[in-house]
This record gives sequence, structure tokens and C-alpha cells, in this order.
Amino acid sequence: MKIRIGILGYGNLGRGIECAIKQNDDMELAGVFTRRDPSTVKIMTDGVKVYSVDEAVKMKDEIDVMILCGGSATDLPKQTPEYVKYFNVIDSFDTHAKIPEHFENVNNSAKESGKIGIISVGWDPGMFSLNRLYANAILPDGKDYTFWGKGVSQGHSDAIRRVEGVKNAKQYTVPVENALKAVRSGENPELSTREKHTRECYVVAEEGADKARIEQEIKSMPNYFADYDTTVNFITEEELNKNHSGIPHGGFVIRCGKTGQNGENNHIIEYSLKLDSNPEFTSSVLIAYARAAYRLNKEGNSGCKTVFDIAPAYLCRQSGEELRKNLL
Amino acid sequence: MKIRIGILGYGNLGRGIECAIKQNDDMELAGVFTRRDPSTVKIMTDGVKVYSVDEAVKMKDEIDVMILCGGSATDLPKQTPEYVKYFNVIDSFDTHAKIPEHFENVNNSAKESGKIGIISVGWDPGMFSLNRLYANAILPDGKDYTFWGKGVSQGHSDAIRRVEGVKNAKQYTVPVENALKAVRSGENPELSTREKHTRECYVVAEEGADKARIEQEIKSMPNYFADYDTTVNFITEEELNKNHSGIPHGGFVIRCGKTGQNGENNHIIEYSLKLDSNPEFTSSVLIAYARAAYRLNKEGNSGCKTVFDIAPAYLCRQSGEELRKNLL
Repeated sequence: MKIRIGILGYGNLGRGIECAIKQNDDMELAGVFTRRDPSTVKIMTDGVKVYSVDEAVKMKDEIDVMILCGGSATDLPKQTPEYVKYFNVIDSFDTHAKIPEHFENVNNSAKESGKIGIISVGWDPGMFSLNRLYANAILPDGKDYTFWGKGVSQGHSDAIRRVEGVKNAKQYTVPVENALKAVRSGENPELSTREKHTRECYVVAEEGADKARIEQEIKSMPNYFADYDTTVNFITEEELNKNHSGIPHGGFVIRCGKTGQNGENNHIIEYSLKLDSNPEFTSSVLIAYARAAYRLNKEGNSGCKTVFDIAPAYLCRQSGEELRKNLL
Repeated sequence: MKIRIGILGYGNLGRGIECAIKQNDDMELAGVFTRRDPSTVKIMTDGVKVYSVDEAVKMKDEIDVMILCGGSATDLPKQTPEYVKYFNVIDSFDTHAKIPEHFENVNNSAKESGKIGIISVGWDPGMFSLNRLYANAILPDGKDYTFWGKGVSQGHSDAIRRVEGVKNAKQYTVPVENALKAVRSGENPELSTREKHTRECYVVAEEGADKARIEQEIKSMPNYFADYDTTVNFITEEELNKNHSGIPHGGFVIRCGKTGQNGENNHIIEYSLKLDSNPEFTSSVLIAYARAAYRLNKEGNSGCKTVFDIAPAYLCRQSGEELRKNLL
């Protein structure tokens, strides 16, 4: 019997989950749940229905794992503790500062319902966190660096779009090559915000808008751009659609550490991602952890978990024997 | 109370463990066990004794985790199943083809004794295996690549030393930059052995030896060199000691995979290590897993485990709360 997956929220992430399910033949899509009018939502999988989110709870016995594809700002803080009362759930909650609180809320609900809730799954938090943890455990005397990009920041693109006279915009976060080089050399540099990343903006201005003023407003925007070297490129809507319609992302987690009698030996652990599609990759991570949630719950476990709490073998279809033979 | 670590076998790896313990203040060295005459073995830690290996079992209540630092060819296949009868043990067994058999042997002994035995810990097998597993779980439609180096291969250095007229030698395995580049571009190249790595040899010839013959013999040696582009550099013993006395290593695990409705998006996951000291880094991994072995056993678990079976949080000193707050 296949693992029956529900998707709650059908945006970029929901669509990514739908694609990922097709790559894992121990899983099947059991239903998509939306806050929109279900008749207006068209999905890619034949024979699978779109439901109103209000019908989700009624289907609790037909879904093994519900993947919550809402946003971290307002959706997930409510949805995850709520839906874990009825389902094993996975979310990609990524507001780092609020993870402890979110964990407690989900854990309380999950302990009561006997379900598993895995939170903050994706690549950061997620795979990047795992790599920080492993590298810290191995090299206690060291220093961590995380770089993001080159990739599209939705938040920064949105911020530009709010500037008067801007019709559309896309912002790329770009790691500074020389900073990466310094880190990899084992010099343990202290890097300021400005030294680590630059910001590249592609902006479509409204007709007759004052471009110099727009550029100035973007570059001086506090938190988003003021602390960075920012470049603003004005392009046409056509160019934006042609060259900047993807959602690539990625980044680097690097730890440099010392070992030896007197710390005489240096070691560099580096993990990097280069992703054509941020939401599809995140979805692929979520699906692997959905398998883990299903199995852990089958074994009688409940409560809130993160990627730190889950033995890697739970993510894989293969048996322990196959994994040892083929991947160890 | 600290975790009391025993070291069985005091070579490069054993010394590395001794250094690593000093970096982890929840651990202490409880004793070093050697097959040599203990009075001839000088260790770095004040107040800790060197014992004959024959005394190990008598100390089973004074050691929480015994780290087995023997070789994979003949030591560990016997030692690990034997010592797990008395101790939680960790080894770095690295004969890939024999891991299933080793696992069974250790598991049988460990289940009986109620101890934990973690096998094949290090970087390959070990951290590289983990990264292969995570990347495979996330991107089922993809291709794996593992490159080793630049680093010293002990086995290949030994093979050169067995050539007549060779006084001393060091061999470096070097990944081919263009092969790495092709893999990272997402081209999914098919790479032959020769295309992936080259072999660089630094050889000290005996006085009057026929260098042309030595070079020819090395380059044509089956399994070790014949399938590779090999360069042989003759140097003096002084140069060898000055420039080639380290034991660096490292490598790359790369998985390229596709997602999307029609596999239209490419993703590249890369993990790499650049290590000044292969045995010290391996030791650092072993020590992190020693912590896991101790904790798992405290919780009542027994049997043989690999890195695949151990939830990452077990490797860290910090509580789940601290990890979520600081590393997630």
C-alpha cells in the first residue's frame, strides 16, 4: 500500500510536492486542499480531487501525511498545531527566531493526538541546518559560514515592487566570490553583511517614472538593501519575463575547524546547493521527510520532530540492508 | 560525569582520537590499549595509562565506549564482534564490499550483550555515505559522483614502496578538474576511471637504481595505476620529508537530479571535504559517534548501527532545545 499524501495549499510549493510524488512510487497523492474555490484550482494529477480546506478533517483516515504548504508568517503558526491533531504533518516553517515557540505548539498538539509533526523541513532550515549540525559535531573548534544564492529572494523582490513607479521586479542575492575564497582558504575571516552578499535588482519601471529616484529608494531601503552593495538594472517587462522568470536559489554552508595536539591541522567541510527551482527542491525534501513521518508514526512515535531528530535511513525507500550495500 | 573513552590501537588514528577527546569536554580518555609492550608506548595525556590489549576486558566497567583503531583488512573483522561483547564500540571499517557481513557479525554479538556497535564511521564510509543517502532520498531521479583527493593514498604509497629500487614513496590521488566541472554543470557525464582521477607519485629511488624501469613498473601496475594517468616524480629523501610528510585528504560527493513536471529543472547537491589530516578528521567523526553510542545505549538500545541509523542530534552535546535555537 502506498503512502497517501495530502497537499494543503496549492501554490509553488504545493505544485512542487505534486511533481515530487510522481518520482516516488511508494507514494500517491490523495487530495489537494485549498482555501480558494476548489472548482477554480486545476491540478496536474489525473483522478485526484481538489477539496475545500474545510473538508480536510473529514478525510483524516484517508491521508497518511498532510504536507502544509502555507506561509511561515501567518499560515503555519496556526495550521501546523491544528492539523497535527488529525494528521501526521510536515511543514517548511522558516522564521528561524520563532522555531522554538512553533516546536512547542506543535509538540503539545502532536503528543495529545499521537501523530508526528515534522517542522522546518526544506533546505534552510533543513539540509543546511543538518550540515551545520554534523560539521559542528565533528569539528567543535571551528567557525560556521552560510552564504545564500545566487538566487531569487521573494521578500526582496516584493519590497522593490512596493516602491512607487515600479511595475515589476526580481531580486537576486549573490554570494561574494572573494568572501567564499577567503573562507575556503581556512583564514576564518570576520565578514560583514556587505562583504558576504551583493544584491542584484532587475526592475521594470512604469512609463515616465523617475528611475534615478527609484534606484535611490531601493538602495537606501533599510534592512533590505542599505547594508549591501546593490545594483539596479532597469529592463523591460519582456526582458524580465524572458530572462528572470525562474525561481533558482542555492547557497553554501562551510565550517572550518582545527584538530591536532595544538590545532595545527585545518579542515574544511563544505555543503552547497545549486537549484533551478527553489520550491521544487524544497518539495523534494518535504516528500522525503513525509516518508519518515509515516514510518515513525507506524512505529508508535508521536510529537514534534525536526531534521535533527530523524535517523537518515527513515528518508529512504530502501531497506537498511540495501542502504548499507549500495550507499555506505 | 564524563563519557569514558577507551582507545584500542595506538597508531595515527588512535593518536587522532586522543587529540579529539581534548576538544570535547564531556569526554575523557580512560585508557589506551595496545598489542605492543605497553611500556614502549608513550601517549600525550597526563595521568592516563597504557595497557596491554589483554587487559581490556577486565576494564569493561570503567569504559563507556571503546574506539577500535585497527585496520579493516584483518583487525576489525575480528575485533569489533569480539569487543562489542563487553563494550559499546565504534570502528571505521572501510572495506565497502564486506560491510554487510561485518554488520551481521557485530549485530549478533551486540544484540546478545546489549551493547551498541557503530561500524564504518569516518568520512568514506561515513560522512560521504550520509551525503549520498540524503541526496538520493531528496532527488530520486539523479546520478551520484564521488571524487577523492587531493590526498595521500596509503595503499598506493605502499604499492610503490614494494617496487624494486624504491626507498620511499608517497602517492596522491587527484580529482580531474574538468571532470568535476562537467559534473557540476549538470551534464551527467559518463566518466571512466581515467577521466575521474589522476595519480601523482613522489618517489625516492635507491642509489644507482634504474629510474626508467621503476617509473615503467609503477605506471603499468594493474589495479593500482594502469587505469590512471600517472605521473612519477623522483625526489630526494629530504624533499619527501620536507614537502610530503602530511596525510591530507578529502573529496567530493555530488548528486545531480531533476525535478518538475517533465524533469525540466536541474539541481546539484555537493558535499566536499578538504582535510589537512585524514586520521585526525576521521577521529573527530568517530568521537562524535562515540557520544551517540553512549547515549543510545543509555536509552536501552543495542545492536549494530551505521551512520544511517543515528539521528543527527545524538552526535551533539547540546540539548534539542539548544540545537533548534542555534543551528536549525
